[in-house]
Amino acid sequence: MTSHIAPVELAKAYRLINHGPTVLVSASHGGVANVMAAAWACALDFAPPKVTVVLDKSTRTRALVEASGRFVLQVPTVRQLALTQAVGNTSLADDADKLRRCGVTLFQQDAEPTPLVAGCAAWLACRLVPEPHNQQAYDLFIGEVEAAWADTRVFANGHWRFEEAGPEWRSLHHVAGGHYYAIGAPLSAQDATSPPSPSA
Amino acid sequence: MTSHIAPVELAKAYRLINHGPTVLVSASHGGVANVMAAAWACALDFAPPKVTVVLDKSTRTRALVEASGRFVLQVPTVRQLALTQAVGNTSLADDADKLRRCGVTLFQQDAEPTPLVAGCAAWLACRLVPEPHNQQAYDLFIGEVEAAWADTRVFANGHWRFEEAGPEWRSLHHVAGGHYYAIGAPLSAQDATSPPSPSA
Repeated sequence: MTSHIAPVELAKAYRLINHGPTVLVSASHGGVANVMAAAWACALDFAPPKVTVVLDKSTRTRALVEASGRFVLQVPTVRQLALTQAVGNTSLADDADKLRRCGVTLFQQDAEPTPLVAGCAAWLACRLVPEPHNQQAYDLFIGEVEAAWADTRVFANGHWRFEEAGPEWRSLHHVAGGHYYAIGAPLSAQDATSPPSPSA
Repeated sequence: MTSHIAPVELAKAYRLINHGPTVLVSASHGGVANVMAAAWACALDFAPPKVTVVLDKSTRTRALVEASGRFVLQVPTVRQLALTQAVGNTSLADDADKLRRCGVTLFQQDAEPTPLVAGCAAWLACRLVPEPHNQQAYDLFIGEVEAAWADTRVFANGHWRFEEAGPEWRSLHHVAGGHYYAIGAPLSAQDATSPPSPSA
């Protein structure tokens, strides 16, 4: 299962989420692991790479992040649409068997203590940068990316390869209520028409 | 030019950026207006709607946001690819004629004092929520959305209509170095295959 997973250099880790995908957030503490979906995750810095993610106070994942000081953001694919929707709409507090029911398989990678979700396109392992005011007032969490990996079938040599991988590898971009878009066609600004010349 | 622009109710304003598009940030103060591109913008709350955006200390737009206490996030389209790349790679500090050279046309909408960029798919007018520590330590700015509008040809009744609008209306999702993806095909979690049933 993990044979296509390769490290991504930290200087390029921001590229894994720069295009705005909905992500899965995994965390674990004291033998309990959980996974939730988050559309509100974003890059924050290049070096060291940092990210933001919004974690509602009602989520069990948030409590695990606060207790362990760590989380992993991962980029799910079209193949994981039902899984993504399911982990985003059920709580471990209501169903101790949530992850199995949602079809989540966890695995460990390298020295990272937080488990990763199998089948994703990319993973960013983060150390929580404690900012109590942001966490309390805005549910906003900052993480420093300490390691990153990608499945080389869809991200290799620092570049997404959505156009070469099959459509099942496309990232998911949630709008609302279970309505998503897959990422689409590549565009190069170098090929774009120049900005219109305003009349003098 | 503005005949297709309609207000978006604030409760649904988050949907305009929930799918992770690269945005344009406009701001103005003391008779000076500027526009920059930002891939690091994200929803932060539903009600009242809030957003985050990362504004580097080197940008003139940031100074205008700090001085005026306001900014507008807007969602550019495939038709604006060259414009988006251009405003993200030139500075008003180096070229007082930046906006004209980049092909930007500004307009005023309703009572919003900050000018909007013509031709975009959607606009979110924000009041800066001052958080000096975030701004200084992380270049992270929080805004409360006070008004929102969309072009009804691509967003109507609270929903994106990318699949019905022409391909030139798709949002832009920057990866790095002028390489973007357009948003792609719609996916409904209701239609997705159920999560795989793990073997008992």
